[in-house]
Amino acid sequence: MNSQLKVEARDARTNGRLDPAMLLLQYERVRRFTEFLCRPLAIEDYVVQPMTDASPTKWHLAHTSWFFERFVLNAADPHHEPLHPQYYFLFNSYYQLAGKMHPRPQRGMITRPTVAEVHEYRREVDDLMTRLLQNGSGRTLHEILPIVELGLHHEQQHQELILTDLKYLLSLNPLRPVYGERKPVTGHELPLLWHSFGEGIYAIGHEGESFAYDNEGPRHRVFLNPFKIGSRLVNCGEYMKFIADGGYERSDLWLSDGWIAMREADWRCPLYWERIDGHWQRFTLDGVRPIDPLDPVTHVSFYEADAFARWSGARLPLESEWEVVAASAPVEGNFVEDGHYHPIPPMKPPNGFPAQLFGDVWEWTSSPYTPYPGFHPASGPIGEYNGKFMCNQMVLRGGSCATSRSHIRATYRNFFPPTARWQFSGIRLAQDA
Amino acid sequence: MNSQLKVEARDARTNGRLDPAMLLLQYERVRRFTEFLCRPLAIEDYVVQPMTDASPTKWHLAHTSWFFERFVLNAADPHHEPLHPQYYFLFNSYYQLAGKMHPRPQRGMITRPTVAEVHEYRREVDDLMTRLLQNGSGRTLHEILPIVELGLHHEQQHQELILTDLKYLLSLNPLRPVYGERKPVTGHELPLLWHSFGEGIYAIGHEGESFAYDNEGPRHRVFLNPFKIGSRLVNCGEYMKFIADGGYERSDLWLSDGWIAMREADWRCPLYWERIDGHWQRFTLDGVRPIDPLDPVTHVSFYEADAFARWSGARLPLESEWEVVAASAPVEGNFVEDGHYHPIPPMKPPNGFPAQLFGDVWEWTSSPYTPYPGFHPASGPIGEYNGKFMCNQMVLRGGSCATSRSHIRATYRNFFPPTARWQFSGIRLAQDA
Amino acid sequence: MNSQLKVEARDARTNGRLDPAMLLLQYERVRRFTEFLCRPLAIEDYVVQPMTDASPTKWHLAHTSWFFERFVLNAADPHHEPLHPQYYFLFNSYYQLAGKMHPRPQRGMITRPTVAEVHEYRREVDDLMTRLLQNGSGRTLHEILPIVELGLHHEQQHQELILTDLKYLLSLNPLRPVYGERKPVTGHELPLLWHSFGEGIYAIGHEGESFAYDNEGPRHRVFLNPFKIGSRLVNCGEYMKFIADGGYERSDLWLSDGWIAMREADWRCPLYWERIDGHWQRFTLDGVRPIDPLDPVTHVSFYEADAFARWSGARLPLESEWEVVAASAPVEGNFVEDGHYHPIPPMKPPNGFPAQLFGDVWEWTSSPYTPYPGFHPASGPIGEYNGKFMCNQMVLRGGSCATSRSHIRATYRNFFPPTARWQFSGIRLAQDA
Amino acid sequence: MNSQLKVEARDARTNGRLDPAMLLLQYERVRRFTEFLCRPLAIEDYVVQPMTDASPTKWHLAHTSWFFERFVLNAADPHHEPLHPQYYFLFNSYYQLAGKMHPRPQRGMITRPTVAEVHEYRREVDDLMTRLLQNGSGRTLHEILPIVELGLHHEQQHQELILTDLKYLLSLNPLRPVYGERKPVTGHELPLLWHSFGEGIYAIGHEGESFAYDNEGPRHRVFLNPFKIGSRLVNCGEYMKFIADGGYERSDLWLSDGWIAMREADWRCPLYWERIDGHWQRFTLDGVRPIDPLDPVTHVSFYEADAFARWSGARLPLESEWEVVAASAPVEGNFVEDGHYHPIPPMKPPNGFPAQLFGDVWEWTSSPYTPYPGFHPASGPIGEYNGKFMCNQMVLRGGSCATSRSHIRATYRNFFPPTARWQFSGIRLAQDA
Repeated sequence: MNSQLKVEARDARTNGRLDPAMLLLQYERVRRFTEFLCRPLAIEDYVVQPMTDASPTKWHLAHTSWFFERFVLNAADPHHEPLHPQYYFLFNSYYQLAGKMHPRPQRGMITRPTVAEVHEYRREVDDLMTRLLQNGSGRTLHEILPIVELGLHHEQQHQELILTDLKYLLSLNPLRPVYGERKPVTGHELPLLWHSFGEGIYAIGHEGESFAYDNEGPRHRVFLNPFKIGSRLVNCGEYMKFIADGGYERSDLWLSDGWIAMREADWRCPLYWERIDGHWQRFTLDGVRPIDPLDPVTHVSFYEADAFARWSGARLPLESEWEVVAASAPVEGNFVEDGHYHPIPPMKPPNGFPAQLFGDVWEWTSSPYTPYPGFHPASGPIGEYNGKFMCNQMVLRGGSCATSRSHIRATYRNFFPPTARWQFSGIRLAQDA
Repeated sequence: MNSQLKVEARDARTNGRLDPAMLLLQYERVRRFTEFLCRPLAIEDYVVQPMTDASPTKWHLAHTSWFFERFVLNAADPHHEPLHPQYYFLFNSYYQLAGKMHPRPQRGMITRPTVAEVHEYRREVDDLMTRLLQNGSGRTLHEILPIVELGLHHEQQHQELILTDLKYLLSLNPLRPVYGERKPVTGHELPLLWHSFGEGIYAIGHEGESFAYDNEGPRHRVFLNPFKIGSRLVNCGEYMKFIADGGYERSDLWLSDGWIAMREADWRCPLYWERIDGHWQRFTLDGVRPIDPLDPVTHVSFYEADAFARWSGARLPLESEWEVVAASAPVEGNFVEDGHYHPIPPMKPPNGFPAQLFGDVWEWTSSPYTPYPGFHPASGPIGEYNGKFMCNQMVLRGGSCATSRSHIRATYRNFFPPTARWQFSGIRLAQDA
Repeated sequence: MNSQLKVEARDARTNGRLDPAMLLLQYERVRRFTEFLCRPLAIEDYVVQPMTDASPTKWHLAHTSWFFERFVLNAADPHHEPLHPQYYFLFNSYYQLAGKMHPRPQRGMITRPTVAEVHEYRREVDDLMTRLLQNGSGRTLHEILPIVELGLHHEQQHQELILTDLKYLLSLNPLRPVYGERKPVTGHELPLLWHSFGEGIYAIGHEGESFAYDNEGPRHRVFLNPFKIGSRLVNCGEYMKFIADGGYERSDLWLSDGWIAMREADWRCPLYWERIDGHWQRFTLDGVRPIDPLDPVTHVSFYEADAFARWSGARLPLESEWEVVAASAPVEGNFVEDGHYHPIPPMKPPNGFPAQLFGDVWEWTSSPYTPYPGFHPASGPIGEYNGKFMCNQMVLRGGSCATSRSHIRATYRNFFPPTARWQFSGIRLAQDA
Repeated sequence: MNSQLKVEARDARTNGRLDPAMLLLQYERVRRFTEFLCRPLAIEDYVVQPMTDASPTKWHLAHTSWFFERFVLNAADPHHEPLHPQYYFLFNSYYQLAGKMHPRPQRGMITRPTVAEVHEYRREVDDLMTRLLQNGSGRTLHEILPIVELGLHHEQQHQELILTDLKYLLSLNPLRPVYGERKPVTGHELPLLWHSFGEGIYAIGHEGESFAYDNEGPRHRVFLNPFKIGSRLVNCGEYMKFIADGGYERSDLWLSDGWIAMREADWRCPLYWERIDGHWQRFTLDGVRPIDPLDPVTHVSFYEADAFARWSGARLPLESEWEVVAASAPVEGNFVEDGHYHPIPPMKPPNGFPAQLFGDVWEWTSSPYTPYPGFHPASGPIGEYNGKFMCNQMVLRGGSCATSRSHIRATYRNFFPPTARWQFSGIRLAQDA
């Protein structure tokens, strides 16, 4: 990968203050990285919506631009005329308070604007954003800089979705198209060890001046019983044993809803796995590959992660336990900038920390996604970013191989329904101590 | 109501020990009370399944007997021959480890055995149970008494379901049949006050020798921020104001899933409410009645409870907060034995406690139903009773007007999906202090 | 069966004129026969709707009475007050012009009125009808006698539906309840011969003064190519060969819609058949029985009949061909009054006519159900009886073992969608000559 | 339009004999015309499947080429290796006997092969086809020429589908993209007159040496009652009166299935119509336009056509009546080569013939699509072309503005389900004489 692009968005804050010039630099890097991710695509690949949960790449490109136009350019200039009034309708995702929106399941029906026109829209927004960040008054900048920063993190989330949605789309094609080649990786075989933590009151959640989403706060105290956490992710070899042991046949291992969902969807292995002539293979962004037993298992639902944990005689960690473990760990791992688009075996033995906490795969926790004590969403449409989804979803932690390094942190709370499998979601075990 | 029947099941334990004679007395009372609840029914009313979530009364009558045959008589006598082998299949609810089962959505297709034959089955089981409790060896009794006790609480749960399922069924009939008459009740108009509780570590959950379901333990510590709890339930008058203020029209009041569910189902008021000539009426077990603004609101989903709380500038309590409040309150309120089958206004001003904590309506909490730290379900099929449902459901507390007084306690955790409305579910508010 | 009941409705016309006294006799016989068919039922069996296409027996009992109240008593007396106003809503089937109606898929939700109350409703209608037929003015009788006659044929149709709907309901019960016992029947093994008919213009359709539904006329001319008709129905032994030869596996035998429907529903044999230890059995109204290879095959869809015919190197007859064949045949066969409720082998060699034209099973034709040239439905709601269904259905001819002998004739056009299997529907073959 | 392209496929037969050189000329013209129709498209427009009934343009381009490869190149050379083996799977439409196929509802998920690759595939097939038609042995040509001819008519059908599927796709886009501009047309206002035909035996169906689909034969006799046929198509002005008169509100005008379908889909006007500020507009391939009351009404389902006819006191014609009327009429009208892509008012007063019989809109008949007497489909997969669809569809006659002039004839039988509205389908009235 182009090394310039690898230096993507970092915290644009100095002592908690946002600097317009720094933020413009970040803006430039994040926006270009989105387009970099589209380079392997044919025009045809941008258009299709493979399922309701996923969106066409073209939509992601336009929506992330709409976010800046609607929430930044609009706020900075009360006389701002929409660049393309109908894009306000087409590319609003779910912000009810920001106006009417095109229905999500119809996103794949919209062949126009074309990809070229969407790229042109991106340029128009970029021009206005650049001018604003360069020339905006102090008062305006004070108001909009935090939203620009939010918009960049928002775009990084969509970068990850571009990859997971594309992977799902390409997997539906019997031709099994290849998104990109990866360098072969040789990792380490690590034993699964258990790190212990004592009972007590711990503080979790974000506080301070660095960026975080609203759902990461307020920082607050929780009481935890003693627990142990696994020293690395569950790998594919271990998951194969679960399958071979009848993991998908034994109702006693599953939550009731999971058993029903699994039977109805006829799951017998993780998404993208298939057994060919007795050998497990999986579809990846670089084509169909034999499965390396040391690779972390991924594309499992919460239900599968939970059943696997029960089969192992362990359990999934609480999100608070995970955060306590990760709080002082360095943010190192396999991220999208490394160009693997794939979870890989541990690269080096961990130095006292559980390995693979960040990057590689999102780790399902046993915690439903609920507001932290004292949580209040922002007012206005931006308040819809996170808060209104706090029901029927489970929290995942740690980022994945499709996440940017600068996007993740120990307090980050991702969330998906327990049936979701198309994200890079995997398993770390915990136990009562 | 027959005063003998009012003396229903109490704790059959003395110093934590179960006494067979006492338990037989309880058995007799609980079983007869089930049948008492069926007295107003025509044979036709026993048969129909009004929706997948509900079951025919006939099925409840048989399933509760199956529970005793399958888990008690079977365990007590290894040579026990099923009284009716096909009932094992027909009346198993969800115990995968207890054998195959008739599919839930088909329960209403089974016209035979007839109601009379199911009553005969109840008698057969009762005879064997009586003999066992009277003549069982000490060793056998030691093993089965806790299951008998569990079976009685299980049957009390189904008594409540008989009433809620029947109410739903009768409501679908344009003739609006009446289940039973109630005595008119005049309650008190109470102001809504706020009781404060300080931050700290609290212990919640069941421990000790009295009966509780496995999901109520282990007792464990939680850290709570300071909070305030409402002194009574939200009443219908308050809920009417929410409706009149556009509560069902404002997306900003709703969780995203709630907004979608509410729009799809076209909810505009609680279940069973309808506006006739500008006046709110509701279908109850005693027919269509004008709504008393002082009655607690009921038959609302979690989503509606949550939206109402947000509209009120408050929130729903955590289940731990609720339990801390209720821990030392007397178990008093409006229960099924009082013969109202309906939530009613507070009967007397509370003496320092929040009113209506027990009985009347189940109170939605903001807590998803998850295992307590250290929770382990029992082994074998009985372990499927509670544990496998710990996903996608919200906890409700406190019992309802369809609950038996002896069935409820401060640690009791009821749970339903956030869309459920056919239970007697209502709202108590909380706030950050 | 009670021999008095066997003498059921005959043509109440003398020289085309309806006589009130004769019609009252018919009325009495038809109405009592409906109730006779319900004798084997438990109350529970009356209530349940096993699928949207079928109705509860209780509904049939009430709807046939509603027909007389709504279209006869109402017409005869402009001051007639509905006996039970809400029954007008509950028991209207599909007559849009007769007022609003309870939705068909909800018919099984209505536990009240009870069975006893519906029987009471029948008596009330019978009393008024009797009085009307005995005392009505000449002018009134002139107007209503044809509707009474229509109502009796309508009720005979519902007698057949009571049996087919009940059979479907009972089949869903793993206990496999028995409706009634039948006398064992020994039939004749007949070779399949072909009767030839020459090309030419033939007249088909009803004309004259005897009763017929509106859809049987006008009588009109059709041009037919030379054809041959099979001398008897296709029997179960022949159908077993079709199955054994991969009939359900070969797409080239099936219409495209049939192939799709069959695959989706996973049909591998006629409805109610099952193979137990290598032997074909079928569920019948008298329980599960081994299949007699000489019995006519029944409970097949049009698609199966069509595929069987193609496999046989033959085809299904046109409805016009069938009628030409049947026009001069005696109306003899196995009807509901014979108490078999089951298609049986031919009872005697046919004397020059194809056998089994009437009774036993409805015979699928290759003719879509369309209006005859010059067809005009009656005005008003009665016009909705037949005409509005003339799309997406196929014509069946000849009646079945669940039809009354007096109900069937050579011009009778029954019709069902090509997927329907719960009627007694079978196969007669034809060929181009 | 390029005048060379206007000279598209004509009958390549001389005295019934197919000449390879002539056929190659036709091949060239038809294939180029398909590509001509794609000129206004962006790459994005080729990919999306807007509903299960429709297909992406890219799929049409590939499937029509697959037809030639699979049924011609394969048959001509037993050693033919598939050009791209997976295309055999991807681009088979419904020929079960030609091998497995990609599921129809997934056609829009296939972003690769790209549009450019599909065009390359077309060129590869064209090269081989050209070589075959130029150099094939007499024996080979004798066998394959009829299939080549069939393939050209097949491709012309898909040209029409390209336009109707694209129109449907573009209509889903709130931007309302324009496919192509049309020349304004001024037609004639013609009174609706009735042409009478006497009763008798008529022969219909194709015979002779010119091309026809198998479903157009055998020629056979039918008996018709006297009838009258409308002198022109029903126009939009007349249809507006039907709407204004409550046509969509009166159940008595509709077939039962039509009423249900219309209510469920909430139809209140033809597809693509909308009322803006009290004025009727419609989406067309050249954008949103005010409706000319003299334009033929189009994009109505069979149910709407049938209801309109009933409202008019008329009926739809039988397909035999239509063919008798059209048998001697010249094949003149508004076809796709005229570049309107839109039904237009009659261009000149008809000279004794009903006007607009060919072109403009497909005319719904009252005839279900069934086999003609003596019909036998070809053996092998080609036999699946027409015969297996002879159920649940209605016949349409006469071609449309999206049909090629050389593709249509008086015996041509088009067919669609009675709910279909996205074809250019309209209404001609008939009456009993």
